[in-house]
Amino acid sequence: MNIQNYVLGQWVSGKGSEYEARHAITGASLGHVSSLGLNYDDILAYGREKGGAALRAMTFPQRGLMLKALALYLQERKEAYYSVSAATGATRVDSWIDIEGGIGNLFTNASLRREFADQPFHIDGAPVKLSAQGTFLGQHIMVPKRGVAVHINAFNFPVWGMLEKIAVNLLAGVPAVVKPSEFTSFLTEVVVKDIVSSGILPEGALQLVSGKGHGILDAVQRGDTVTFTGSAATGMRLKSQPHYLERGVSFNLEADSLNAMVLGEDAEPGTPEFDIFIKEATKEITIKAGQKCTAVRRVVVPADHLDGVQATLAGRLATTVFGDPSLDGVRMGSLATQLQVERVRSSVEALAAENEIVFGRRDGQGEAKASNPLAGAFFAPVLFRNERPMQNLSCHSIEAFGPVSTIMPYRSLEEAAEIVALGRGSLVTSFVSADRDAVRQFAWRPPTAMVESTSWTPLAPKNLQAMAPPCPS
Amino acid sequence: MNIQNYVLGQWVSGKGSEYEARHAITGASLGHVSSLGLNYDDILAYGREKGGAALRAMTFPQRGLMLKALALYLQERKEAYYSVSAATGATRVDSWIDIEGGIGNLFTNASLRREFADQPFHIDGAPVKLSAQGTFLGQHIMVPKRGVAVHINAFNFPVWGMLEKIAVNLLAGVPAVVKPSEFTSFLTEVVVKDIVSSGILPEGALQLVSGKGHGILDAVQRGDTVTFTGSAATGMRLKSQPHYLERGVSFNLEADSLNAMVLGEDAEPGTPEFDIFIKEATKEITIKAGQKCTAVRRVVVPADHLDGVQATLAGRLATTVFGDPSLDGVRMGSLATQLQVERVRSSVEALAAENEIVFGRRDGQGEAKASNPLAGAFFAPVLFRNERPMQNLSCHSIEAFGPVSTIMPYRSLEEAAEIVALGRGSLVTSFVSADRDAVRQFAWRPPTAMVESTSWTPLAPKNLQAMAPPCPS
Repeated sequence: MNIQNYVLGQWVSGKGSEYEARHAITGASLGHVSSLGLNYDDILAYGREKGGAALRAMTFPQRGLMLKALALYLQERKEAYYSVSAATGATRVDSWIDIEGGIGNLFTNASLRREFADQPFHIDGAPVKLSAQGTFLGQHIMVPKRGVAVHINAFNFPVWGMLEKIAVNLLAGVPAVVKPSEFTSFLTEVVVKDIVSSGILPEGALQLVSGKGHGILDAVQRGDTVTFTGSAATGMRLKSQPHYLERGVSFNLEADSLNAMVLGEDAEPGTPEFDIFIKEATKEITIKAGQKCTAVRRVVVPADHLDGVQATLAGRLATTVFGDPSLDGVRMGSLATQLQVERVRSSVEALAAENEIVFGRRDGQGEAKASNPLAGAFFAPVLFRNERPMQNLSCHSIEAFGPVSTIMPYRSLEEAAEIVALGRGSLVTSFVSADRDAVRQFAWRPPTAMVESTSWTPLAPKNLQAMAPPCPS
Repeated sequence: MNIQNYVLGQWVSGKGSEYEARHAITGASLGHVSSLGLNYDDILAYGREKGGAALRAMTFPQRGLMLKALALYLQERKEAYYSVSAATGATRVDSWIDIEGGIGNLFTNASLRREFADQPFHIDGAPVKLSAQGTFLGQHIMVPKRGVAVHINAFNFPVWGMLEKIAVNLLAGVPAVVKPSEFTSFLTEVVVKDIVSSGILPEGALQLVSGKGHGILDAVQRGDTVTFTGSAATGMRLKSQPHYLERGVSFNLEADSLNAMVLGEDAEPGTPEFDIFIKEATKEITIKAGQKCTAVRRVVVPADHLDGVQATLAGRLATTVFGDPSLDGVRMGSLATQLQVERVRSSVEALAAENEIVFGRRDGQGEAKASNPLAGAFFAPVLFRNERPMQNLSCHSIEAFGPVSTIMPYRSLEEAAEIVALGRGSLVTSFVSADRDAVRQFAWRPPTAMVESTSWTPLAPKNLQAMAPPCPS
């Protein structure tokens, strides 16, 4: 069985095999993935011309209602996606983030149609009088870009990663070509099969490249948009291609993020805030086995409470059963692939050079609850402790993309902000406190890079992604 | 006499001479320019730390009132700037755009303070409810970037180029280092001398590098902003430096723009729209001797009216006296430097390979009204005609940055839009018509790149630059 591509209006298999997808818990083959032989010049042109023309002719409310219809359609079929999602090593809760989080994103963007007039374009703000007599007025209008959005997605959210991106470009009247990771595209394929069957989107508005997609970015032209979610190294290599600069292609890179969670000085053990902090930190480490771009990698706590937080957190991790989510009591699943096990292990090794392991083992071995623990991509939680976060810096740059986090002390609110800033920009930083002044002070002295994030979409009405990390809270 | 730099709290001369500035009309020396020997790591750090700290502590209304006070202060001294500006080859009207346009920009940004609360940061929009019970809310806040804005400006607007950029970063609470072109920094220097003397800006909020500034961009760090106005080739070279991508530096590039002006099919000779079109096209060619980033380079008219527009426009250009603006009757001044004469001549040569000259000479020679025509950087207007704008493409990519434009025919509104799009993105396109449907249709079928422009500033409330090209209309 092959995982297929949907391009130029039909489902096609690539030549040969680029990757054999496997069930993350059992190791069973799920089929071969390939996008070899696809013609990306044709595929992107088809999107721009066929899909783009149809979408541009629709008004914002029409596009919004289309998204709503799609969301309702997928919601009815969600149980099928949960079944397939289990093969990614996900628990029900993990799959909920991916599947219903993704569908929720369609609903949210659908609702935004009410902020737009019944026009295919958007009148942005009031006219501005530029000459004394009003003979020279300024009026911004926003129109759909005539290009195509090419989304290169990460393996950890095969459904949400697609839906959160296309929701915005479809509302804006721009077609998409989605290239999920070949590791989990078997799930994206199932959802796209339903989307295509539904007939809700105009033909050409969505195409799917299930394999590695080598060469897809060479076909990108002026007016296209590229989004990349994945590793910083790959992203930087792709972003710096000269033809993007020359063609003015907007490129959005979402890569490694050393997210932090800071416990306020007031939030001592025994306070509700302390309990919230421990609960959320535990969730951040274990949900999706830590495979979230927004997962907390740095747990920053007042020096006085470092031991207390460590003991409490380690206690919670010790009672978290991990293994095969189909078995009773399992709260944390596996990583997505055996390759990820190797990658996380390698990052843990690197972190262990200057951070002390206070829970777990550097090889990720542990008591996985599964009928065949050796077959699954299991990795047990690891908690590091870094006594000197201003000197030992690897925890601020190495992201182990699994159930791995580092606790570290701070001595003043200012120092906490400096520690956070060492991550050089994060998707998320949490500050847990009931002290309004401290919250204000911390938010108002943010690390430089906290204001660097930009919204990635053509005509995005609001960057809801930045506000709503995929957390089932 | 040396043109000086204002850095680290003092006025200093660079080592030696990088350039000898000359009066554009008389050729007389204005002094030597140099920024050799400046330490940009120190200069940028000084801006970030000293200027940035002071600006961040101010609220938006305070920053706005500071801009207003500065605008009033400079307005009182404007006649001194007109005197110096004459040495750039500018007429009174040309100088008005630069000087009072720049001061007007300060006033406009000062007024925008009313859109912000009395806080150093900005609460962006209403909270968004992200969980059912309201325990998870989203609220964007916008804070000043902790870096410095480095503005690399073009020679054609030594005052406006500085003020329009710093107005925005100062309102946003971000310090600036301005590097005007060494060709006309003698005027920027005079204005900055007054700004510094006024004591209105906190020390460190504005520094001036008058010379070539070699190495300034190497000192740029994460959190800084770079804006570049100038040639596309230089801009692209600067923008593609790997350390900007790595450091996530926002880089705004404003370069060559083949702006177009389109005459509607309804605007026949004899209509008010036709007269407006001819009047504005003439102004666009002659004001500032065509040295405006927004100047019209492509005059796109219905095929039936091509001869009529050509004859009328050529007639107007024939009666436009150019030369020394201090002499009676002179309506168009000189280019800024002899180097610009060479550059414009070279571009005209290139354009002449496939476009017919229907007014003027390819060497730019003509009857300059001046006591010593050979001493000034004069270039006479040139009008090209391109019968086949879809085939002869050089007029869509070669910008002669002087009083040079090309007229060309179109046969349908759709074709007009395609012709405009061949410029691959422009700062300005004008469509002159009294036919509302045609205006709507033209605006709604814009070239791909019209929506590509982005606002360049940290925390810019509105990109007024895009709405208000510097036209004294």
